[in-house]
Amino acid sequence: MQIGYIGVDIGGMSIKAGIVDLNGSIVYKEVVKTDTKNGSEPFLKDVKQLLKNCLAKSDELNYRIKGIGFGVPGVVNNRLGTIDYAANLGLYNVPIKDYLKELELPIFLSNDANVACLAEQRWGAAKGYSDVVMITLGTGIGGGVVLDNKLFEGNQGKGAELGHTVIVVDGDECACGRKGCYERYASASALLRFTREAMEKNPKSIMWEYCKGKIENVNGRTSFDCEEKGDKAAIEVINKYIKYVGEGLLNFCNIFRPQAIVLGGGISNQGEYLRVRVEEYLAQNNYGYHECPKVDVLLAKLKNDAGIIGAATLAFINE
Amino acid sequence: MQIGYIGVDIGGMSIKAGIVDLNGSIVYKEVVKTDTKNGSEPFLKDVKQLLKNCLAKSDELNYRIKGIGFGVPGVVNNRLGTIDYAANLGLYNVPIKDYLKELELPIFLSNDANVACLAEQRWGAAKGYSDVVMITLGTGIGGGVVLDNKLFEGNQGKGAELGHTVIVVDGDECACGRKGCYERYASASALLRFTREAMEKNPKSIMWEYCKGKIENVNGRTSFDCEEKGDKAAIEVINKYIKYVGEGLLNFCNIFRPQAIVLGGGISNQGEYLRVRVEEYLAQNNYGYHECPKVDVLLAKLKNDAGIIGAATLAFINE
Repeated sequence: MQIGYIGVDIGGMSIKAGIVDLNGSIVYKEVVKTDTKNGSEPFLKDVKQLLKNCLAKSDELNYRIKGIGFGVPGVVNNRLGTIDYAANLGLYNVPIKDYLKELELPIFLSNDANVACLAEQRWGAAKGYSDVVMITLGTGIGGGVVLDNKLFEGNQGKGAELGHTVIVVDGDECACGRKGCYERYASASALLRFTREAMEKNPKSIMWEYCKGKIENVNGRTSFDCEEKGDKAAIEVINKYIKYVGEGLLNFCNIFRPQAIVLGGGISNQGEYLRVRVEEYLAQNNYGYHECPKVDVLLAKLKNDAGIIGAATLAFINE
Repeated sequence: MQIGYIGVDIGGMSIKAGIVDLNGSIVYKEVVKTDTKNGSEPFLKDVKQLLKNCLAKSDELNYRIKGIGFGVPGVVNNRLGTIDYAANLGLYNVPIKDYLKELELPIFLSNDANVACLAEQRWGAAKGYSDVVMITLGTGIGGGVVLDNKLFEGNQGKGAELGHTVIVVDGDECACGRKGCYERYASASALLRFTREAMEKNPKSIMWEYCKGKIENVNGRTSFDCEEKGDKAAIEVINKYIKYVGEGLLNFCNIFRPQAIVLGGGISNQGEYLRVRVEEYLAQNNYGYHECPKVDVLLAKLKNDAGIIGAATLAFINE
């Protein structure tokens, strides 16, 4: 019999659960649609059924499950095992650990960006690095931190909200209620905003042609692709975007002093070009401090599986 | 025979060493002038002599010393036990732990702001809190963090540089090489700058009278005292200063989620008024996030002894 852990990746569209072995590989996966329209009860029932299915399957596959981890898109309490606030799911104060106690397994919760970082640090892009910061450049910015091979979550597991650190006091309004948050300047949404603003100011930019004359066609590749063709407005957009991404990362360098930074989320599909630009920005700014170790910038590897693998790894390292 | 630890507080003017008991009290203190003009050799010799004196005294006082801790105003490597960079002292790459190995005692180094935070958390203002952020509002801003009763220092002990996180991208130039660092907007120096700027713009402000007509008489109390008298320009200065102090603290709340924030340094002498204003600012901004524990704002208590006590505590918790 082999040892395994179950990782559960809770998303707005679906709840994915997987059995993960001690090499960080998913040996079985099962998915159910997220249903939170009628409060937390149907959601909790679905989760319990999903886990029961996985546990039955683990018997079949000859795996002994030693713990269950959750990656949650919101604020958890990692001591009590509760989902305290997940706005996108409409979940508030959900005592998930307590609800699942009949499974008689250790249960651990963390934020989804935290477990993604853990997955990349243990099994993905940053394997071999003990101190890692990961940011996901998507609609918002998720942040995860691993220090000395342990997940850094802040008190109660409610910290490491790297996307909600202000880098422009009195700047753009953020959904969190503050102004000038990192995610307002370095997320994919920010890049689209910068692109649209640049197009409106520059009617001759080839970005218009790229978007077939329609500003609503702007996407995360528009400015990158047009920059490559030498478009001045696009070059300015990318320079500005890299600067904001870099300034936030330098802040995290000065706080955590990681050996590696992992870039994830949609924008990280820009790949090596983005990676090099960000790494150069950090190097040119001397990581913001003296006599500090070099930081490598890496691209996330595990993509959609990072959630399941990271959640299982959370159980693995805590159990 | 009682147990004790030696804490060494390295400063630009003097090196202070003290024997600290298990209650966090200094039972013996000795001081020597800091001499680094001729490189690190005289400095190291002085430190060794100071420690030898303290060890002799500990025999006399019937204390058994179990470890030595250092608080260093600069960048250390806490694994190697080296002072890597202390610009104000002109010290670079000083292998202090190695130099002191003949003392045959465990030796630990950390940044001075880190050990001050540790002292306040264990024995001072934040006694009883397990998760604490401390900032010292002085010429610059020093930052220290204790999480789950352990000192948070980042990789190699080189993180937690809270004063060098940018809160205004493209803002004021900082000595560290970046632009817009927290310490450029929330240090005592920043308050003086805001005060002078406000006076220059407002020739009728009573701050002129307070300074006897000379702008060079501006100090950390000028704007606070004149705000109390209802001076409009001073009110604006203080509002602006509190905002910057608060925005940085909200960032640290979202990263560390502390139970308490300790304010130290010269500006903290403004006392209860400052404490309440900062606490209110954080509360009004809902700590920047949802479902997060309340954070208490506290005033540093240990003042000049924090360095020695914190350095000794560093040895105590690590030994």
